[in-house]
Amino acid sequence: MKTYYKIDEWSVIEEGFNPHHQEESESIFSLGNGHMGQRANFEETYSGKSLQGTYIAGIYYPDKTRVGWWKNGYPEYFAKVANAPNWIGISVKADNEELDLHTCKLKDFRRELNMKHGYLDRTFVAVLKSGKQLKVNARRFLSMADDEIGAIRYTIESVNFSGTIEMTPFLDGNIVNRDANYDEKFWDVLDTGRNDENAYLKARTRKSGFEVSFCMTSELYINDSVKKDKTQSIMRTGFVGQSFKFDIAQGDVAALYKYVSVLDSLNYKPEKLISKSVQAVIRAKKRTFNGLFSDHAAYWDENWTHSDIIIKGDPAAQQGIRFNIFQLNQTYTGRDERLNIGPKGFTGEKYGGSTYWDTEAFLIPFYLSTEPSKVARNLLIYRYKHLGKAIENASKLGYNQGAALFPMVTMNGEECHNEWEITFEEIHRNGAIAYAIYNYIRYTGESEYLAEYGLEVLIALSRFWRHRVNWSDVKGKYVILGVTGPNEYENNVNNNWYTNKMAVWTLRYTIDSIEYVMNEFPLAYQKIVKKCRLHYETEIAAWKDIISHMYFPMLEERGVFLQQEGYMDKEQRMVTELPIAERPINQHWSWDRILRSVFIKQADVLQGLFSFEHDYTTDILRRNFDFYEPRTVHESSLSPCIHSILASRIGEAEKAYELYLRTSRLDLDDYNNEVDEGLHITSMGGTWMSVVIGFGGMRVKEGMISLTPSLPKKWSFLSFNIHFRGRIMNIGITAKSAEVELLKGDPIQVEINGKLINCHQKKN
Amino acid sequence: MKTYYKIDEWSVIEEGFNPHHQEESESIFSLGNGHMGQRANFEETYSGKSLQGTYIAGIYYPDKTRVGWWKNGYPEYFAKVANAPNWIGISVKADNEELDLHTCKLKDFRRELNMKHGYLDRTFVAVLKSGKQLKVNARRFLSMADDEIGAIRYTIESVNFSGTIEMTPFLDGNIVNRDANYDEKFWDVLDTGRNDENAYLKARTRKSGFEVSFCMTSELYINDSVKKDKTQSIMRTGFVGQSFKFDIAQGDVAALYKYVSVLDSLNYKPEKLISKSVQAVIRAKKRTFNGLFSDHAAYWDENWTHSDIIIKGDPAAQQGIRFNIFQLNQTYTGRDERLNIGPKGFTGEKYGGSTYWDTEAFLIPFYLSTEPSKVARNLLIYRYKHLGKAIENASKLGYNQGAALFPMVTMNGEECHNEWEITFEEIHRNGAIAYAIYNYIRYTGESEYLAEYGLEVLIALSRFWRHRVNWSDVKGKYVILGVTGPNEYENNVNNNWYTNKMAVWTLRYTIDSIEYVMNEFPLAYQKIVKKCRLHYETEIAAWKDIISHMYFPMLEERGVFLQQEGYMDKEQRMVTELPIAERPINQHWSWDRILRSVFIKQADVLQGLFSFEHDYTTDILRRNFDFYEPRTVHESSLSPCIHSILASRIGEAEKAYELYLRTSRLDLDDYNNEVDEGLHITSMGGTWMSVVIGFGGMRVKEGMISLTPSLPKKWSFLSFNIHFRGRIMNIGITAKSAEVELLKGDPIQVEINGKLINCHQKKN
Repeated sequence: MKTYYKIDEWSVIEEGFNPHHQEESESIFSLGNGHMGQRANFEETYSGKSLQGTYIAGIYYPDKTRVGWWKNGYPEYFAKVANAPNWIGISVKADNEELDLHTCKLKDFRRELNMKHGYLDRTFVAVLKSGKQLKVNARRFLSMADDEIGAIRYTIESVNFSGTIEMTPFLDGNIVNRDANYDEKFWDVLDTGRNDENAYLKARTRKSGFEVSFCMTSELYINDSVKKDKTQSIMRTGFVGQSFKFDIAQGDVAALYKYVSVLDSLNYKPEKLISKSVQAVIRAKKRTFNGLFSDHAAYWDENWTHSDIIIKGDPAAQQGIRFNIFQLNQTYTGRDERLNIGPKGFTGEKYGGSTYWDTEAFLIPFYLSTEPSKVARNLLIYRYKHLGKAIENASKLGYNQGAALFPMVTMNGEECHNEWEITFEEIHRNGAIAYAIYNYIRYTGESEYLAEYGLEVLIALSRFWRHRVNWSDVKGKYVILGVTGPNEYENNVNNNWYTNKMAVWTLRYTIDSIEYVMNEFPLAYQKIVKKCRLHYETEIAAWKDIISHMYFPMLEERGVFLQQEGYMDKEQRMVTELPIAERPINQHWSWDRILRSVFIKQADVLQGLFSFEHDYTTDILRRNFDFYEPRTVHESSLSPCIHSILASRIGEAEKAYELYLRTSRLDLDDYNNEVDEGLHITSMGGTWMSVVIGFGGMRVKEGMISLTPSLPKKWSFLSFNIHFRGRIMNIGITAKSAEVELLKGDPIQVEINGKLINCHQKKN
Repeated sequence: MKTYYKIDEWSVIEEGFNPHHQEESESIFSLGNGHMGQRANFEETYSGKSLQGTYIAGIYYPDKTRVGWWKNGYPEYFAKVANAPNWIGISVKADNEELDLHTCKLKDFRRELNMKHGYLDRTFVAVLKSGKQLKVNARRFLSMADDEIGAIRYTIESVNFSGTIEMTPFLDGNIVNRDANYDEKFWDVLDTGRNDENAYLKARTRKSGFEVSFCMTSELYINDSVKKDKTQSIMRTGFVGQSFKFDIAQGDVAALYKYVSVLDSLNYKPEKLISKSVQAVIRAKKRTFNGLFSDHAAYWDENWTHSDIIIKGDPAAQQGIRFNIFQLNQTYTGRDERLNIGPKGFTGEKYGGSTYWDTEAFLIPFYLSTEPSKVARNLLIYRYKHLGKAIENASKLGYNQGAALFPMVTMNGEECHNEWEITFEEIHRNGAIAYAIYNYIRYTGESEYLAEYGLEVLIALSRFWRHRVNWSDVKGKYVILGVTGPNEYENNVNNNWYTNKMAVWTLRYTIDSIEYVMNEFPLAYQKIVKKCRLHYETEIAAWKDIISHMYFPMLEERGVFLQQEGYMDKEQRMVTELPIAERPINQHWSWDRILRSVFIKQADVLQGLFSFEHDYTTDILRRNFDFYEPRTVHESSLSPCIHSILASRIGEAEKAYELYLRTSRLDLDDYNNEVDEGLHITSMGGTWMSVVIGFGGMRVKEGMISLTPSLPKKWSFLSFNIHFRGRIMNIGITAKSAEVELLKGDPIQVEINGKLINCHQKKN
């Protein structure tokens, strides 16, 4: 762990250029706007090590599966996040000498990610081999207000010479994916073209056939007056550029504005893409850089009013939590129900796919509280729309009867992952999908969602569990054999407590939901019965039988729920006994050794207790926490947040803070030495939870927000804004008190430390 | 299952050509001589589907590992059997029209694999598009007497025309491997050359750097007189040929003799390879085709005197068993301790590697009984020489202390396999290596082997088990967690009975062996103690503690040893309940479904009972057989033989015969529809065992051969020849009697059905 970036409440700042750190910074300073994203690659030439990354939401390449030993049921392809054509590029020459940040000398290098208004700013003085010095400032943003538009202002000042400058903004389709199984090319460039004003490039992903059109236009100012020089077009295979050549005197400042529109066939007919992208870029240019930026900044201002968290007394924590919130909000805006949140968002391509159980378990709570309910609802509908494919997926594994198994990793509803112990066995993901429905309704109160979408999904999930369990004569109980729980440091185990719990809970919740819809929405109910061919009596009877007779492994003498059968046969070592040189164990131990060790990647019993906390006494929570936490190595980015929340819950404030530190600055301080590959976007939802649910102690109880805060010692003040049932509230917490201010919406009751408070909007 | 080939006691015969069956026949008619092997590809051009395969013992390519998800400890490469340059080719043109067996019409096609004398014979009449007819006979063999030599006699008779024939025997290095992870080229051709007499081609495997030199010389006879025509050389990249062009009249017969030497850098210095291969081919030509063949046939005559099995009353079984013995003997001759027996021998390239636990468990018994003890000893020494690498391999998995884990798949001692559940967990292979030492000494009586080689290996194996077990507080026993037994339809299970049994047995046998060597070979013992840094007191105490306190899962109420913990939690279905449409389950079920089902690929408890049969009563054997056999789908080629032997042992003769049928003609009748990929060489040892150990009831008891025969009803007579401690014996069995004839060696006692018989050689 290292603190490389400057601590600042609203910005991430790098001072001085470190080429060995370039790929890390490219991740950290990434920008996105829900529709597309861009790693912080340089506009100008950079011949050093770099992971070029431009990503467009929902656009993927079906990369042929790479596997050592094929198993029946493996998918044919893995949907890879496709690195799209480079639209940011601006090459710069001074008297024909290329500005390459890898080969020139750099002075006063500084870059800043401004999170308040969502832009990237970069300044430096480059000393070329010839001795010529250029002072550069580059600023760019991907408009949140107009998500088809990216804009760049790139200014050059001649520090010490007079001469000719050539600036060539370009679009380049000659790109590769670093994450490619067989080094295949993912794109074909279909068309490039230009006129005096604009240049465009249209490309199509191979196999999946997504089409994207990029259109750019540029304007050049010298010392604030428009330079009318005709540009010279440069066309090469898969490349189009517009070259500006002009004379510059010492002290002159040239500013190039580059506007780019990025449109794709998810939203437009392929044959209209080019003309629509030309229209979009004309619209952008007309609005001007400053106009576009002010729309963009206004969006962020508004967004922070319902998503911000303020921490006083701990600037690193303040920066950390804002960085997490900022990244989540620029990754997913909830406008498009076909999209989801990939593990690296728009900051890298590793792992591929866009949807993991992370969304339901770690992100829905964030979007539920920080956005209008439509955003979380769209994430639910995403899965609803994949129900057919989940049913098909289950049938490949031998389940018919309308059972659904949602994929472990997916883009379009089809399974991508290809490790049997995960693809076929990490079935608890089905539970997370049921739980998200429950959680959504609990938070929003929108129980009609059940009738419209939720119940169909629940029925299919319950059918899966019914056929996935089997009766054990020996135990006289139902068992679930051969699973991998959220703790992926155990594979193919029997009776994982968390999975069994999720199965039983889903069956129960489905039965309750059926009753509810039957009574409240009888017409919808009849439609669902018909569509799902629900045999009420036999199916519910079978589910109830499983509910009553499920086996749960227990460590009776310690009052602990046992992670899985046989766990106590392991050598009982504690994490504190592990030599530092062997950690993280996943980088030092062979897989079998990890599997048979007692050590836990993330404690799934605790994950279950977190989900169903209201069913358990504090004593039970404490006993399980005390048992599992010392055995947990937290080698999943999703682990410390849950442990931190439970530690807060049982009053272990110091432990909670220690665990929180591991999650909040995971990427900024590069705890796992892997930020070069991209950010851990989905675990950022966990960080948010550990503040709001953990330290804030926020719960929803009987349709009401309830707070039982307990701040880390270091924090003098914590405040967060939340959406809740049409209101926006600000919650302010000190060591001694907690207050709620209603910023928007009708009066509402809130429970603070067990007391009911009536909240009204302040009169202005 | 289908009977495609003609049943014949000494031959496999195909009548009529079936292009859809070509790859299967290429496997079935394969030839080898221990040093090299050749699929039954055609000499002349064949543009149809074919798996070209020329393999040279010990020559491999380290093919970059292909894996979906990397795990620590995986090997960097998989040693692939490298398809070597084609040395059999002879292209034929009649008046410039190419003889291509895929495009011409074929009449009277017949091929025969003569197992008595080890040659492949092929005759046909080809009708070219022009209407010209050629009658062809091709015969080839790979000399067992001079294993660097292959020889071909290729005769053409003009049936209906006079004209010009061009025959071009060639060597061709432009070959590919079908089994290649990334379609890499495995070979570079280093040199080609020729003079009037000879042509050579030298090639080197990439990365591994093995060099092979092929040298050929040819002679042409027309109507039995030598044709002195100068040949014309043809050289292309990686190709060298010698073209014979001559006139032929209707009824003329042209015979081309092609002699090829194949030498490699395992046996010669690379720089000498070409000259040595030229010398070898001159030697071969001088000996003449008939002379070479008579040496080769004499080898086979001699070999069958100690390896043959005669079955009367069941010609298909007779052909089947001879096919198995023939293949084993042409795959491995035991001359070179650096070689081993790959799963496909020289008949295909799939699976790669040359050494699996199959060798110790299924092949050593065959070679022990059919060859002088040196052959089996060389297989043991092969592992001894890999001990250093096995210790290194174990250290990669976290074991120091001189513990050894032998690889699952290897060529040179390094692990090749890359599935964690096998590579890291199928550790019972270590047990098979210990057992082979025990079995070797039991059979041969050569207990000095322990002092020379065996004990070092045993100590390293025992050290592995010591550190692989752990103490379970819950059970108050030692347990072995996270293993895969021989039944690979269970992965990552706890306390696999077979593995635990093998571990404890190895520890016991090592202790006994230490005592033995200490007393009998005190000097050798001191050397071993020093070399292995054996701490007698502490190590033996630890081993004894494990022996006394190992946990074995049991199904007490049925008196059955339980395959692994938790097995009885599965839904208890029998194989007879499986729909035919779902079998084999490994082609129809997803992997998780197979894993959590009760169904067994090969019953490892029975494998253990087979190994330690003398420790158990017939009643125990029967109870376990009755429990496991109905749950076993026999989807491993190594499964039915062991079940058959146990069925014989407990007096279930019909069941034994039914199971025997599944193993003996597995390839000839292509039970599994995969013979095109090559033969199941290693399971052939199991077939032999099910006859000799199963029906013959042969055991070694207290240094003596003991027989308790029970023939299948259909068999009127069974006889087999065996080597035993310097003797060669013939055993003849009918339904009523069993007799032993000593063919060679000093008088010996044999036990038949409990009675001691004194055997002397008959006086001639």
